[in-house]
Amino acid sequence: MTDFSPSPLLIVISGPAGVGKDAVVACLKERGCPFHFVVTATDRPPRPGEVHGRDYFFYSTAEFERMEREGELLEHAIVYGQHKGIPKQQVRQAMASGKDVVMRLDVQGAATVRSLAPEAVLIFLYASAEELLQRMKRRGADSPEQIALRSEELAAEMAYLDIFDYVVVNAESRLNCAVDQVLSIIEAEHCRVHPRKVVL
Amino acid sequence: MTDFSPSPLLIVISGPAGVGKDAVVACLKERGCPFHFVVTATDRPPRPGEVHGRDYFFYSTAEFERMEREGELLEHAIVYGQHKGIPKQQVRQAMASGKDVVMRLDVQGAATVRSLAPEAVLIFLYASAEELLQRMKRRGADSPEQIALRSEELAAEMAYLDIFDYVVVNAESRLNCAVDQVLSIIEAEHCRVHPRKVVL
Repeated sequence: MTDFSPSPLLIVISGPAGVGKDAVVACLKERGCPFHFVVTATDRPPRPGEVHGRDYFFYSTAEFERMEREGELLEHAIVYGQHKGIPKQQVRQAMASGKDVVMRLDVQGAATVRSLAPEAVLIFLYASAEELLQRMKRRGADSPEQIALRSEELAAEMAYLDIFDYVVVNAESRLNCAVDQVLSIIEAEHCRVHPRKVVL
Repeated sequence: MTDFSPSPLLIVISGPAGVGKDAVVACLKERGCPFHFVVTATDRPPRPGEVHGRDYFFYSTAEFERMEREGELLEHAIVYGQHKGIPKQQVRQAMASGKDVVMRLDVQGAATVRSLAPEAVLIFLYASAEELLQRMKRRGADSPEQIALRSEELAAEMAYLDIFDYVVVNAESRLNCAVDQVLSIIEAEHCRVHPRKVVL
């Protein structure tokens, strides 16, 4: 019998800030989808209640710098002076166990994954600039200057769309529908005659 | 606002004889999917109760030969001395109205569509040779010689798998699951950042 057991996928949920990436990933978790959800590594110390391997992987700065030097990070950024990144080993292990791997990244991070793992499945969550700026204003926490700046950033984020495989609209009160589409994409990818083979 | 209105798809449901292509298409119809289901054209005369445009499009042999000469048939075969085929015009019209077009074809027909419309979405319905031959035997209508011949044909049909985009297992009592997968594939294809553009 021909073997159609699917290869595990590396799935990146991305899109502009404020579009609802965390909400989509949280919904996938709530629905009990059998994916490995990537845990980010950081070199900041754990806060009270945070658990290594659940909230973050906590590594020393030296360890982080070693992983970076040795190309062991799939994605890496320094945010407010602190290292954040995704160790390849975590992704390799999950895929070796047969699980699809889901990670949530900003669009620059998605671009890095595209270059390191061209066979990853990149999903861009989309909402119109109008709607994203409305969401900001409704929160009321941002000054007009911050909103103007955000508007410029948004245009830069949208320019990344081209490197993505799929775009899913995550407009207001459409979260469940967006999550259904993400799941359809994953199911369809598993039906490909020529599967994507991710090598890390 | 960016326009993500999806381009209509040309979807081919194919696979070896006996795998359940008709059952999958019938199930898509029963579920009320808003697709245009292609109606085959033929030059045999209508039988009592058959309706032009519902059961078949009935054309004269001369009209068929004209369409063939002018490249107006997407797929064409002579079966027991009678012409059968799919006029491109039907597919063009349905797609122009914004509808996805679904057609059921044997694997040779799917190969023809692939060459004439490379951007078509080709779905191969699969069941193991063992299961397909068991289904034949259970029907009891076929001689051992016919079953041996069928087994050879099956191997030839499987060789076409490589030109398909997707494979969906349609094993016994899995019809609804197979139809769900077909619908996921169609939904995912509509989310592509770079849509397939079928030109006929």
